[in-house]
Amino acid sequence: MTTDAAAPGPADVIARLRAALGDRVDLGADGLEAARADKSGHRSTGRPLAVVRARSVEDVQRTLRIATETGTPVVPRGAGTGLAGAANTGPGEIALSLREMTRILEVRADDLLAVVEPGILNADLNAALGAQGLWWAPDPASRDISTVGGNIATGAGGLLCAKYGVVRDAVLAVDVVLADGRLVRMGHRSVKGVTGYDLTALMIGSEGTLGVVVGATLKLRRLVPGAPRTLTATFPTVRAAAAAAAAVTASGLQPATLELLDAAALAAIHDLLGLPAPAPGLAQLTVQTDGPAAASESEAIARVLAAADGTVSLAADAAEGERLLQVRRSMHPAMERLGTTLIEDVSVPRSALAEMFDEIARIEREHGVVIPTVAHAGDGNLHPNFVFDAPGDPGDAGVDVPAHIWDAADDLFRAALRLGGTLTGEHGIGVLKRRWLRDELGDDQFALQRGIKQVFDPDGILNPGKVFA
Amino acid sequence: MTTDAAAPGPADVIARLRAALGDRVDLGADGLEAARADKSGHRSTGRPLAVVRARSVEDVQRTLRIATETGTPVVPRGAGTGLAGAANTGPGEIALSLREMTRILEVRADDLLAVVEPGILNADLNAALGAQGLWWAPDPASRDISTVGGNIATGAGGLLCAKYGVVRDAVLAVDVVLADGRLVRMGHRSVKGVTGYDLTALMIGSEGTLGVVVGATLKLRRLVPGAPRTLTATFPTVRAAAAAAAAVTASGLQPATLELLDAAALAAIHDLLGLPAPAPGLAQLTVQTDGPAAASESEAIARVLAAADGTVSLAADAAEGERLLQVRRSMHPAMERLGTTLIEDVSVPRSALAEMFDEIARIEREHGVVIPTVAHAGDGNLHPNFVFDAPGDPGDAGVDVPAHIWDAADDLFRAALRLGGTLTGEHGIGVLKRRWLRDELGDDQFALQRGIKQVFDPDGILNPGKVFA
Repeated sequence: MTTDAAAPGPADVIARLRAALGDRVDLGADGLEAARADKSGHRSTGRPLAVVRARSVEDVQRTLRIATETGTPVVPRGAGTGLAGAANTGPGEIALSLREMTRILEVRADDLLAVVEPGILNADLNAALGAQGLWWAPDPASRDISTVGGNIATGAGGLLCAKYGVVRDAVLAVDVVLADGRLVRMGHRSVKGVTGYDLTALMIGSEGTLGVVVGATLKLRRLVPGAPRTLTATFPTVRAAAAAAAAVTASGLQPATLELLDAAALAAIHDLLGLPAPAPGLAQLTVQTDGPAAASESEAIARVLAAADGTVSLAADAAEGERLLQVRRSMHPAMERLGTTLIEDVSVPRSALAEMFDEIARIEREHGVVIPTVAHAGDGNLHPNFVFDAPGDPGDAGVDVPAHIWDAADDLFRAALRLGGTLTGEHGIGVLKRRWLRDELGDDQFALQRGIKQVFDPDGILNPGKVFA
Repeated sequence: MTTDAAAPGPADVIARLRAALGDRVDLGADGLEAARADKSGHRSTGRPLAVVRARSVEDVQRTLRIATETGTPVVPRGAGTGLAGAANTGPGEIALSLREMTRILEVRADDLLAVVEPGILNADLNAALGAQGLWWAPDPASRDISTVGGNIATGAGGLLCAKYGVVRDAVLAVDVVLADGRLVRMGHRSVKGVTGYDLTALMIGSEGTLGVVVGATLKLRRLVPGAPRTLTATFPTVRAAAAAAAAVTASGLQPATLELLDAAALAAIHDLLGLPAPAPGLAQLTVQTDGPAAASESEAIARVLAAADGTVSLAADAAEGERLLQVRRSMHPAMERLGTTLIEDVSVPRSALAEMFDEIARIEREHGVVIPTVAHAGDGNLHPNFVFDAPGDPGDAGVDVPAHIWDAADDLFRAALRLGGTLTGEHGIGVLKRRWLRDELGDDQFALQRGIKQVFDPDGILNPGKVFA
């Protein structure tokens, strides 16, 4: 602890970091500038003090000790692919990057677990596991560019969640450095374990506000045998497509992925890919089945979709399946051509999917906005894209979301809550949704969550201003 | 809040309860006596103040308001089938029974969820769900007599966990009454949801120390189609049986259940059932496969077990399968004939199962005790039964566990921790294992957990003395 009466100034904090961490401290303009933003389109108001590029648990501990001694905020950061602004770092703050801690420390096929450092990319981990016939199931769309630690910090989801679970279902234990630099090992290596409160689950999705995850013991699966099967089905309206998706779940069939593109999204993608323009209003489902029964399940799903007014096209082989999937994968590049987008992430019970699309249509009408939407229809998670023209360069405060877009987003969130849903299925709260957090949690639960934050981070130096407004 | 300077006496607390709750307040000797104990063999030092038999959320809220106003401890209670003493209620405390809140409020096949009150028995819920082709997977051995709320409060496991998950994987949301009577709804109805910290996960396994679960939204599965297949395999030593069980997991096969009986357990069961005495040292695995590939998986598992020195017997039909399972199910009655038992619940990584049995053999030798053991070998969870002669009637303090049995149990827990395991896979800490909690968690994590307890229950009236020593 410092014994100075006055708080140390920025120069003193940087000097201490350099003395303790040497070349791990990046003060270059590029690094500082990059640490201001993630992929949400938002950016902090200015450059942070420094970027610490930790290479070890000890580096993280040293950084947090200095942060606590000097009262300096710390913003943990993986690959910066978040979509809610949780990793954005501003003036007076330290960006603590885990991206260089990429080791796989242990893989146990017999225990179906792996112990990894947080900075490894999801796809790199899965490439290494695949060679042993193993697999870590969480599959955010960002898996090629996002880290396992970031997946844990945001409680990431993905396309496969209805069948294979979310991050919470795939983490056995985490090693966490607390705000004052102490290292705590939470969780266990066994399938079962109920000793005390489940702090591992508490860390998942905590967005860097409770501690810094410096290691994780992951629950693995065996690779699913056999080739997957792919089909698409088009529907005259998005409501019909959503109702058909719900009918698949209600029928008891379990696809691996079940993705929905509404008419605006499908039209933009066809335009991007140079495909013929779809009929006006046409919406599409893309379905993949896997495992030993992939073929028969695909055919059964095709029957359900046809009975629900879908025009079904079953891929003859893997190459054709890949072409069908490419349409779905082109959502983000297609949106980028339309203008600036605010990507939302509401999630509703699967049976409410069609009603949620009714609400989106209403919001488009009432607010005069276009909201191309892709949905993980198999689990009820929607990504409505609010598209708008941003005035000129984003500037120091990042994208300047116009007031009428925020109003429409507000309407959207409240509709999701009314339908029994949630603000965010897999992106997290960050800065983007913090103004609605209390609406979903209620005052009493909000206070409990703030109380837990206080237990872990009494000085409030871990990612301040994120999650809690 | 009371404005009296002096704390209200027991008569005043009872008077307030009766005024607010009428005939829900049970002061009869039978009820008070029953509330002293669960099925751990332990008992509190005396009768509680009262048993409140809540019939509604409001009853629970009223009870907790009075408890907070009068500073009276409250011990929530389901069916009293716990094995760690967490529901045992003593002098000066209120036993708050949820057992009469048994309604199923909603079942949604299309959303694969059910909303239930906490007092419904696991088996009663599953009977109702089964009629709709649905299933709540957690299957503690006590499922016929234990409540869903109790399953949640203890984070219960069961036989099917390796394939179908634990309670933590099967609860979407909980309604919780806090210590001061406020009702908070945690979690969500959607498959995905990462708004704020995962308080639902925090409640699971919290053993009545954070709040009272008065409702739960459960994640359901479709009933598994087809008939299960059953086999047994015997091995010359328990080590060989444990190694064979680990070989099944390592082979990539996934049985629904994979249960192990060691020689002392098997001999006691054969004696109970009037079967021929097994060869000395003989240990047994009982394996069940399910789903569309049940037959081929059963045959593949048989080959793995035979290659690992097992003598395999595949049941020809369901009736024979049932007879084989009956042996495993007779464990508890067989133990009861041997003497008083202390049932432990360590869990280790699956690959460490054989080593854990080596440790049990060492502990038997060094401490001069017999420890018949059954294991959920598929997930590494062992139930060593310490058998001893209790002197006379259990008396006011419940079973008097002799010091040399505690010493042996201490040795066992430390061995499990050394092997990367945990004190308790599915029974919880309660009073039985609280002396070891800090050993597993470490001082820093212990302090964090105490801090969370303080946030939820600042006056310390929720199940005091349990979990935390």
